[in-house]
Amino acid sequence: MVLKVSRRGQVPPFIVMDVMQAAADREAAGADVLHLEVGQPATAAPRGVIEAARRALERDRLGYTLAFGIPELRERIAGHYRDWYGVDVGIERIAVTKGSSAAFLLAFLAAFDAGDRVAMVTPGYPAYRNILTALGITPVMIPSAAEHRYQPTPALLETLDGPLDGLVVASPSNPAGTMLDPDRMRTLLEYCRSRGIRVVSDEIYHGIVYDVTQASALRFGDETIVVNSFSKYFSMTGWRLGWMIVPPELVRAVECLSQNLFISSPSLSQHAAVAAFDCHEELEANVARYRRNREVLLNELPAAGITDLAPADGAFYIYAGVSRFTNDSVEFCSRMLAEIGVACTPGVDFDAGRGMATVRLSFAGSTREMVEACARLRTWLA
Amino acid sequence: MVLKVSRRGQVPPFIVMDVMQAAADREAAGADVLHLEVGQPATAAPRGVIEAARRALERDRLGYTLAFGIPELRERIAGHYRDWYGVDVGIERIAVTKGSSAAFLLAFLAAFDAGDRVAMVTPGYPAYRNILTALGITPVMIPSAAEHRYQPTPALLETLDGPLDGLVVASPSNPAGTMLDPDRMRTLLEYCRSRGIRVVSDEIYHGIVYDVTQASALRFGDETIVVNSFSKYFSMTGWRLGWMIVPPELVRAVECLSQNLFISSPSLSQHAAVAAFDCHEELEANVARYRRNREVLLNELPAAGITDLAPADGAFYIYAGVSRFTNDSVEFCSRMLAEIGVACTPGVDFDAGRGMATVRLSFAGSTREMVEACARLRTWLA
Repeated sequence: MVLKVSRRGQVPPFIVMDVMQAAADREAAGADVLHLEVGQPATAAPRGVIEAARRALERDRLGYTLAFGIPELRERIAGHYRDWYGVDVGIERIAVTKGSSAAFLLAFLAAFDAGDRVAMVTPGYPAYRNILTALGITPVMIPSAAEHRYQPTPALLETLDGPLDGLVVASPSNPAGTMLDPDRMRTLLEYCRSRGIRVVSDEIYHGIVYDVTQASALRFGDETIVVNSFSKYFSMTGWRLGWMIVPPELVRAVECLSQNLFISSPSLSQHAAVAAFDCHEELEANVARYRRNREVLLNELPAAGITDLAPADGAFYIYAGVSRFTNDSVEFCSRMLAEIGVACTPGVDFDAGRGMATVRLSFAGSTREMVEACARLRTWLA
Repeated sequence: MVLKVSRRGQVPPFIVMDVMQAAADREAAGADVLHLEVGQPATAAPRGVIEAARRALERDRLGYTLAFGIPELRERIAGHYRDWYGVDVGIERIAVTKGSSAAFLLAFLAAFDAGDRVAMVTPGYPAYRNILTALGITPVMIPSAAEHRYQPTPALLETLDGPLDGLVVASPSNPAGTMLDPDRMRTLLEYCRSRGIRVVSDEIYHGIVYDVTQASALRFGDETIVVNSFSKYFSMTGWRLGWMIVPPELVRAVECLSQNLFISSPSLSQHAAVAAFDCHEELEANVARYRRNREVLLNELPAAGITDLAPADGAFYIYAGVSRFTNDSVEFCSRMLAEIGVACTPGVDFDAGRGMATVRLSFAGSTREMVEACARLRTWLA
């Protein structure tokens, strides 16, 4: 007899994975690639983190930890909210997770049942929608545009048919890099609270912002599920560590779900991450490099003919309209890689429809790569 | 307005966590505890693994890896199946996961839709049921007993009302320690195949077996999802690394689900685990200690009056009937800890009903602990 294959397991792949494979193939064949496709820092973890990991390797048995993580790390995260945002958060609400990926899974399971409706804007990070779908939750896509700074607004939410149970907000946004300023964040959260909409606030790019004020949703009430990560500002992607700030009424559910779904997060990563909060000097140097890279792209891309650029308040992405050149961004990116060795991500990963006319350029790499990529694009697009 | 709290997030906690907390409180108060409650090796990772981790810390950027893991590790896992089981498995079917926990989540999502029925025996590992429930899948509990060696059999499956979509098998079982010998495994898999039942085979305690033949479900066909882990035999719990062997028709679904739900597994753990397959001498010394510990418990528990013991073919657990002493195993374990400092797990974690008359004793600790625990139990129960 034929055995079960689930329908919900049929989630779409990330197109960027195909780009990365094509880039790897090109490199294996001896050609060079400028990597503007990857969504991770080019740097390793800061030296203090690596040193802390070395000590933990020597001294610790590295067994399971509590589901919510080691107390030292949760204390440091609480301190981080005092230092950066002037907010007090009790450590009983701080859950260390296996990357922000696990945090989203826990958040969605704890807050939403099958059949619930959870909104998010396009363009946006595709895993939100795909995780929700796998869990039987209905994702409600809200097309957002330059005039909304690619963010959700009460006015956009008002245009939807039917009530919502939840909303995912990402500020800075991936791919657009745009942010909700504190006033807009407060207004949006108040709107959602008054309508019974649970907000999940993705703040994984906090710390990587340019001349704007970053507001944690935590400042405006404790009913929002806040998700953060050691992957981006702290430059620890492969360590697979994130955290969430859990509303009091969801703490027990998230704890029991964590025990069952994950047991605990990687122990070595937890011990090492305690030191991350002492590494701001090195981490700010990374941000300074992102800032230089961003300047290069914002100056040089228009000179190459790519003029339709999202503001890039934060994160390390430029989301660019390329409708002057193509209505098939997948083919456009594929040709860009093949012809000039510049890898970037077609917009369809973030916006299935309109993304055929957009691309995402990551400036997490070196400044040299950015300068060279712009020079090649200028020639190529001329 | 009141915000959403999901119904499916209300999964029960593990009672063992309360035992562990009570044990920690007792130790914090200065009293000693013999830890027969924890389901993890008392040892750290083998020296070769720690050395490999140290090298990776120095040399590698530790960014994301491919969703299925680094090729070197997948190659070593393929070699492991040749060495231990004489089975060839293509590395395209080998997915490295964030512990076996993530593997179960991926397996259940890829194979089963909401409303599907997946069976497992009691006593059994409670997370199977709780993960399935969170995903909207209906767990079907099959009470199994000593005469079935606490395993599923075709005859037991025949007693169920309604068809099944899946079956979870654990050999060795947690908590019972019993195994399906190769003939029983083959018979069970053939029965399931003929009725369209997808089997998920939990083999995370393989390598820790006593005088019996361990059979991987992989030997009997490629339609079974096989889950394994670096946590038990390889003594790497806190490294959060496992793997699964995926049936060919599910590979793409598991890969896309992995990308979306987890991105990738901890990079340092992956680099370190490559060396685990060169550490058999140290790992076999661990198994020799488990074997001595098992002998101590199998000899001394009956002398203390605990005579109803499951066979313990593998893993590091003795599942014991204690109906002579109690019909409330939670209270019994609580009193045992308070009065003689011996921590063990009440059976209700594994069998909500009959577990009120059973306990699970873990012998993953030191032989000295086992000897001392038995001496205290003998006095206490006299």
